[in-house]
Amino acid sequence: MTPDQQDVAAANEAFYGAVERGDLDALTGLWCTEETAVCVHPGATPIHGTRNVLRSWALIMANTDYIQFFLTDVTVSVNGDVATVTCRENILTAADSGPQGFNGGLAEALNVFVRRPGGWRLWVHQASPVVSEAG
Amino acid sequence: MTPDQQDVAAANEAFYGAVERGDLDALTGLWCTEETAVCVHPGATPIHGTRNVLRSWALIMANTDYIQFFLTDVTVSVNGDVATVTCRENILTAADSGPQGFNGGLAEALNVFVRRPGGWRLWVHQASPVVSEAG
Repeated sequence: MTPDQQDVAAANEAFYGAVERGDLDALTGLWCTEETAVCVHPGATPIHGTRNVLRSWALIMANTDYIQFFLTDVTVSVNGDVATVTCRENILTAADSGPQGFNGGLAEALNVFVRRPGGWRLWVHQASPVVSEAG
Repeated sequence: MTPDQQDVAAANEAFYGAVERGDLDALTGLWCTEETAVCVHPGATPIHGTRNVLRSWALIMANTDYIQFFLTDVTVSVNGDVATVTCRENILTAADSGPQGFNGGLAEALNVFVRRPGGWRLWVHQASPVVSEAG
């Protein structure tokens, strides 16, 4: 990976880390401040504008006791001042039912980052539910 | 809408028009030629690189007798030389079963366009299945 790709990959990991810790301040610092920011949660309609996007994450984090993302198939592409990351989110959440009190989930995420003076910032996040695979 | 937004919206409509007509040449002209291009079909894993992306569309079009996209909630945001479009794809396809031989589908799409000398080109397309709504 190039230094740019490494920086983008680190910003991507910081994003999921902030959600896991429920750290809204860190999450706020990682998103760009544009009204053009977009977030599409699995199965949901798009949310536009950083304020609304962060509010949606605050709600998710407030209603989640425990969440952990195991990222696989991470691909980072840098195109000037814009970069895309695709990754598979293997999601573990606390649950009232399920084996050992955990639920598993799966989504394909696409994150678009823009280069800012302070570093790479999230501009677009979309996570699609994945058709479950045999196995 | 600004002239830029109008151009992006026109490119977005041209994209869906090309899929409806099964016009692979038009579709090829609408995608950028980068290896960083990404396409995530509903419920599927990401496809990287314009060649692979176009092959996936060729397969879809070859296996589809009839497809029509009714786009709603179209939002266009331009950020320098990159633009995002979010829209809801209300999809009508021919079907062996179903009322009047049609099937309906629903997806939330996010399309990212990059500005090129010849116009706006698709760089990213992701369509998420939508949790069905009452109604």
